[in-house]
Amino acid sequence: MADHGSDPMRVPGSPARTYGERSTFESVSRSAGDSHSLTPLQDLNGVVTPSSLHFERHHNGVPAIDPSRHRLLLHGLVGRPLLFTVDDVQRFPSVSRLAFIECAGNSRNGWRDAQDQTVQELHGLTSTSEWTGVKLATLLEAAGLKPEATWLLAEGGDAAGLTRSVPLTGEVLSEAMVCYGQNGEALRPEQGYPLRLLLPGFEGNINIKWLRRLKAGSAPFMTRWETSKYTDLMPDGTAYQFSLVMEAKSVITSPSGRQQIRPGFHEIRGLAWSGRGRIVKVEVTVDGGRTWRNAELQEPVLSKCHTRFRLPWTWNGQQAVLQSRCVDQTGYRQPSRDALIKVRGLHSSYHYHGIQSWKIERDGRVRNTYA
Amino acid sequence: MADHGSDPMRVPGSPARTYGERSTFESVSRSAGDSHSLTPLQDLNGVVTPSSLHFERHHNGVPAIDPSRHRLLLHGLVGRPLLFTVDDVQRFPSVSRLAFIECAGNSRNGWRDAQDQTVQELHGLTSTSEWTGVKLATLLEAAGLKPEATWLLAEGGDAAGLTRSVPLTGEVLSEAMVCYGQNGEALRPEQGYPLRLLLPGFEGNINIKWLRRLKAGSAPFMTRWETSKYTDLMPDGTAYQFSLVMEAKSVITSPSGRQQIRPGFHEIRGLAWSGRGRIVKVEVTVDGGRTWRNAELQEPVLSKCHTRFRLPWTWNGQQAVLQSRCVDQTGYRQPSRDALIKVRGLHSSYHYHGIQSWKIERDGRVRNTYA
Repeated sequence: MADHGSDPMRVPGSPARTYGERSTFESVSRSAGDSHSLTPLQDLNGVVTPSSLHFERHHNGVPAIDPSRHRLLLHGLVGRPLLFTVDDVQRFPSVSRLAFIECAGNSRNGWRDAQDQTVQELHGLTSTSEWTGVKLATLLEAAGLKPEATWLLAEGGDAAGLTRSVPLTGEVLSEAMVCYGQNGEALRPEQGYPLRLLLPGFEGNINIKWLRRLKAGSAPFMTRWETSKYTDLMPDGTAYQFSLVMEAKSVITSPSGRQQIRPGFHEIRGLAWSGRGRIVKVEVTVDGGRTWRNAELQEPVLSKCHTRFRLPWTWNGQQAVLQSRCVDQTGYRQPSRDALIKVRGLHSSYHYHGIQSWKIERDGRVRNTYA
Repeated sequence: MADHGSDPMRVPGSPARTYGERSTFESVSRSAGDSHSLTPLQDLNGVVTPSSLHFERHHNGVPAIDPSRHRLLLHGLVGRPLLFTVDDVQRFPSVSRLAFIECAGNSRNGWRDAQDQTVQELHGLTSTSEWTGVKLATLLEAAGLKPEATWLLAEGGDAAGLTRSVPLTGEVLSEAMVCYGQNGEALRPEQGYPLRLLLPGFEGNINIKWLRRLKAGSAPFMTRWETSKYTDLMPDGTAYQFSLVMEAKSVITSPSGRQQIRPGFHEIRGLAWSGRGRIVKVEVTVDGGRTWRNAELQEPVLSKCHTRFRLPWTWNGQQAVLQSRCVDQTGYRQPSRDALIKVRGLHSSYHYHGIQSWKIERDGRVRNTYA
């Protein structure tokens, strides 16, 4: 008999499954350290990051939380302290939205002497999901937030007991959510299962995961995670605190670091995002900044969400330097590395958002460079 | 020593992982038959269906295809037949979009005497993903489609060798895609890995999975899957063929069949979609159709995509009948079951899109009913 094992049309396929998995031929992965893992931006399409590949960052591991035993306490400057079960939270009027979350430390090697790394290694601490939950304002209203309450302490239920102070600005009250859903299903453990805070546009760390407590106060709480960590050391030695918003940023994901390309047609592909709102323009250069062309933005272009951009390009086999720069709806333009360092110095570990340059060598090798 | 094992804040959590999985406390699943499985609409949030929970339907199992050996042949009425590898396809200019896919046979029990079933059992053959691929028109242009070509045969690489005829209308040429990506990563095996056809708005069956061949012709090819199957038997005994578009439909997913609710506040939640474009309105009744209120549509509202709707409701503990009906951008209004049957009769197995009614009993039990 002929061997039909290698021809999928000659053998019956597998039956239906209750919960699907990817093909055994696929092995794209988050590169994982002890306390973080990085989204493989070079391998992904569109703007939704698969939950299994959403970056993670945690400060004492991922807790295993039984949702039936989890509680969220809302207290402090409120008329009526409340203790919610997860079911309680889910019964409130809910909202969904797509939003990116980016670690404040993403791209931190840009402040240093980043060498020959991939886009995943350099910029993989950012991901986009469709989040579902209850508006923070809805829960605060239920508890009767007092007029003098201007800050909120948010505490995570992990072994690090991570706490941050959230300013109760109009933007926060209109956009912040207590989330229970991610990309349709329940939050993933690394993303805060069963409840997390979502502050669209704010640095990842303040989007408190495994949320167990919210305390309303009249001043910031000055926790460890906003004093010794997650502040920006400026050139004059002072620390810039509560620098919460992730500014406009873009990066070309293909071609990108450590890839090997051939002469001929390529679609330059990348992602742009801003913690201030929508991306309105992405420009791309293939000659190190001498000339720029507008990339096409893939619809839908959503506020505080990864936006995919594309530009056709034919590589002639000569050295080339590729860069992208974006503009957000406030008119803010992503700065060059030099311009960013001129203001911010080189002492910071956070909020690097300068232009990324990829150099294409004559042999087709792509490497990180400071153009 | 005290037992801290039950308190996640007293023990270090798990390290980072290269590919994440859901919490061990979560068990939401597709209910799976031999050749299909159903999306658990009652358990999902937002509009993106997790790839692991996207419904599946196949006619000889899910093939295990090695992408490095897979080829797509494009031939027939073209100037230059082409044979693509998966890599070849991925190098073409690409596009991404969110779109639902719904099996033509979804909700088929609506034609019969559907009893006490869940929304998953009744309507779970529809899901939404962000799809990425190359426009069909781009590939046809590369092959030099001849002017006399008006239909396209699409063939799948599974053991069923499923084939369908695709009309090359302006809408198809502007929207159809050959996809390689789903929700950011590669297609899942059940969804056609490594390549599938996407015809936004058309019945699921014609979105050929495991796509291996496209042949341009000047007439439909009259395959088994559009003659003996996937045609609509009308009241007069004739068969309505090439009824490809999935019409406007909506369903309340919470509260829904076989759920048990308590008196008090509920947010009525559901999904609406149309193969003709955007959803512009969803109305909800809680009194079996005597009075209707507009539900809130969750942004973004996208063409040919599940749209989430919500309406606050306080249940007073009395019998109630809940229904939703939607209107799409063409002005088409989802019909009542009676109105649909009046035109289509009761012989069909496909394209049921009448209004779904859920009856709430005094004891809080929710059941399917024909109101």
